[in-house]
Amino acid sequence: MVDLIAFDADDTLWHNEPIFQATETQFAQLLSTYHPPEWVRERLFATEMKNLGHFGYGIKGFILSMIETALDLTESRIGGAEVRRIVEWGHDMLGQPVQLLDGVRETVEALSGRYRLMLLTKGDLFDQESKLARSGLGEFFSAVEIVSTKNASTYRTIMMRHAIVPDRFVMVGNSLRSDVLPALEAGALAVHIPYEMTWAHEHLDEETLAGKEFAVLERITALPEWLAAR
Amino acid sequence: MVDLIAFDADDTLWHNEPIFQATETQFAQLLSTYHPPEWVRERLFATEMKNLGHFGYGIKGFILSMIETALDLTESRIGGAEVRRIVEWGHDMLGQPVQLLDGVRETVEALSGRYRLMLLTKGDLFDQESKLARSGLGEFFSAVEIVSTKNASTYRTIMMRHAIVPDRFVMVGNSLRSDVLPALEAGALAVHIPYEMTWAHEHLDEETLAGKEFAVLERITALPEWLAAR
Repeated sequence: MVDLIAFDADDTLWHNEPIFQATETQFAQLLSTYHPPEWVRERLFATEMKNLGHFGYGIKGFILSMIETALDLTESRIGGAEVRRIVEWGHDMLGQPVQLLDGVRETVEALSGRYRLMLLTKGDLFDQESKLARSGLGEFFSAVEIVSTKNASTYRTIMMRHAIVPDRFVMVGNSLRSDVLPALEAGALAVHIPYEMTWAHEHLDEETLAGKEFAVLERITALPEWLAAR
Repeated sequence: MVDLIAFDADDTLWHNEPIFQATETQFAQLLSTYHPPEWVRERLFATEMKNLGHFGYGIKGFILSMIETALDLTESRIGGAEVRRIVEWGHDMLGQPVQLLDGVRETVEALSGRYRLMLLTKGDLFDQESKLARSGLGEFFSAVEIVSTKNASTYRTIMMRHAIVPDRFVMVGNSLRSDVLPALEAGALAVHIPYEMTWAHEHLDEETLAGKEFAVLERITALPEWLAAR
């Protein structure tokens, strides 16, 4: 028996990581006269991790981290024209159309007739609300929770707030680290739908999965059948 | 009879606008060889307004708007060292200690024994949560709502979610535009506690206030007496 199904958003409902990775490729290209691409990516990731406690997740922090990395890697010799290109990539990223993954709309619409659905995503409040509005999926969710981080305590708080018993709450997402493990730790059920690419920060040691029990589905379209079989 | 008191955060509970204005002064100084300070401030504000729909409120968007304005006002001639200074201001702003306004701690603590209190603020989710944690006020609020914008519909949604009747909900804040008017429009009570300075975006035509009824208090310490007299 399931009372509420919570969906992660980025790379679960709509494509996100490819937008970041495409911008990273442009960024490595921009600095290619200074450093090899792999080193640029490595330093950018280090800057992002250093800034995570100040910036949180999202595109604005990513753009600021790119600018900072460009200054670091060129000893501030990078010019205004290059900085402007980075700022413009930010606007492009924020204005990208929301592209749903295959089968998302039909599946979410069908499930919304039978279950309470929640959107449960971390990241920038403003950007995530804007993406939800542009996704056309808003009407199918009875609750939207945008949080700054996803750990077991986050899931416990949300289940309490919505008066849901943990074993009747299903978390569906592409990240083992943010969606699956902390939801399991909070006593909920979890469904992992891997995405074609994963941000380095979301990578997880396989060992951490020892003894855990959750479902892995290839696509979101398999979710109704999994739910029906429970 | 009041069931719930909601407090705005920036410039109601803790100082905020002076941090932005001090950074703006440094920014105008940085560009003073190119343009007079008033023109720099005017262009920065115009950039912030242009970007509001992409960035929302908060420090990260403000920093990106400063960088963009610096590029615009110097035809991208601004150098890496100057861009770095702007980025560093951003880190300084995000790391500033949270300074409560006079009387806030005592008042909030005293009221928390008699009423349900909510923190209800717009802005950057991550930054506002971090400020609340650093403020030491977290334990006094039974609910925290961080929203991307504050209009009448925001207030209605929040009152519904918390099952509060509008005329038993009091909104307390320094902004007529974000705290007082939309709360009144949603049928709630409103208390205005003006702050020493107001961001241009929050300015309001006095005419808009015609026919409105709300309380104006000089300081938050006057709030318990106002509540007791109702």
